[in-house]
Amino acid sequence: MPHLTLLYTSNLDRDPDCDMDALCRGLADAMLTVRDEGGQQVFPTGGVRVLAYAAGHHAVADGKHDYAFIYMNLRMGRGRSAAVKQLAGDTILAAAKAKLAALFTAGRFTGLTVQVDEGAEVYDAKHSTIHPLFRNP
Amino acid sequence: MPHLTLLYTSNLDRDPDCDMDALCRGLADAMLTVRDEGGQQVFPTGGVRVLAYAAGHHAVADGKHDYAFIYMNLRMGRGRSAAVKQLAGDTILAAAKAKLAALFTAGRFTGLTVQVDEGAEVYDAKHSTIHPLFRNP
Amino acid sequence: MPHLTLLYTSNLDRDPDCDMDALCRGLADAMLTVRDEGGQQVFPTGGVRVLAYAAGHHAVADGKHDYAFIYMNLRMGRGRSAAVKQLAGDTILAAAKAKLAALFTAGRFTGLTVQVDEGAEVYDAKHSTIHPLFRNP
Repeated sequence: MPHLTLLYTSNLDRDPDCDMDALCRGLADAMLTVRDEGGQQVFPTGGVRVLAYAAGHHAVADGKHDYAFIYMNLRMGRGRSAAVKQLAGDTILAAAKAKLAALFTAGRFTGLTVQVDEGAEVYDAKHSTIHPLFRNP
Repeated sequence: MPHLTLLYTSNLDRDPDCDMDALCRGLADAMLTVRDEGGQQVFPTGGVRVLAYAAGHHAVADGKHDYAFIYMNLRMGRGRSAAVKQLAGDTILAAAKAKLAALFTAGRFTGLTVQVDEGAEVYDAKHSTIHPLFRNP
Repeated sequence: MPHLTLLYTSNLDRDPDCDMDALCRGLADAMLTVRDEGGQQVFPTGGVRVLAYAAGHHAVADGKHDYAFIYMNLRMGRGRSAAVKQLAGDTILAAAKAKLAALFTAGRFTGLTVQVDEGAEVYDAKHSTIHPLFRNP
């Protein structure tokens, strides 16, 4: 159920300072480190996924520079404590800033937003041959 | 207003066992069959749409296999009964499992999640030359 | 935080009557005009972004025509008045209809939906070198 979606301007796919595959992997690895108050892994390994989408067309701010933008949205299951939600967001933000540091240097115009939503789904079903790989015997 | 979005790993577009166009059509056809307690069609024909997006970059689970993943999110109008919401989700899940059966056979690692959200929009406007095709005289 | 996402059928990218880059820019410009009751700009210039995504695969209605569809979703910050939300939606709808008028002429089958959501995020963080460009001294 932890579902992290990245929406971004396509100029980043042409930017040698941005490795989107490495960013996705880094974000997934960061998510796997998040633990709750009892020390349990918050996001089950088999359920972690990060999907990144470059927009085919975009407009940012006043359009006067070649602005870059990345929006990250984590949808997580309901019922976690405020501390766990904060930790999840902080963990993603820290991983993103570390991987994207070169984009925030002088003379570049880059925006990053990280938001976490609690899912409010009225229906939820899973069918998976990935989860069983990570279940304890 | 019934809006079904699929987000998936791009390895599925290269998989001969996955026909994404047929999946979209099958899901739309399944949505058109959903009836409420009074026998009325829940999703108006002219409003049904299924849009599927392969992620340009992704990371799933521990990254140790070429995992495939599909996330389906149906956003439907507010105010339907619990039974109708359940039926809508079950109908999509059944259609997806039927179309994707080959992806869940032995030795493959595939995940499918189906979620239904009720829209909580604070503004909603439509402009359409599709709907009138399906209005009764 | 104003985040406008367009999801649309890819036939529009092949349609000479649809200029998606111009649509994105027109929508961003329209968003910049929205003012609240006190005359203040509702969407900060540095935070406005419009991202448009053609679906790789789709199914619309009964599939018997080459239907086109665009879904626009604006996610805006919480706490604005009902009048401002309405104005934001109306402004986007008007800009979209103006830019897309040719798609709604006789003999064409096109659908447009505009929805505005208030974000319900449990975590929200920004990191930007765009915003400072537009801050008053």
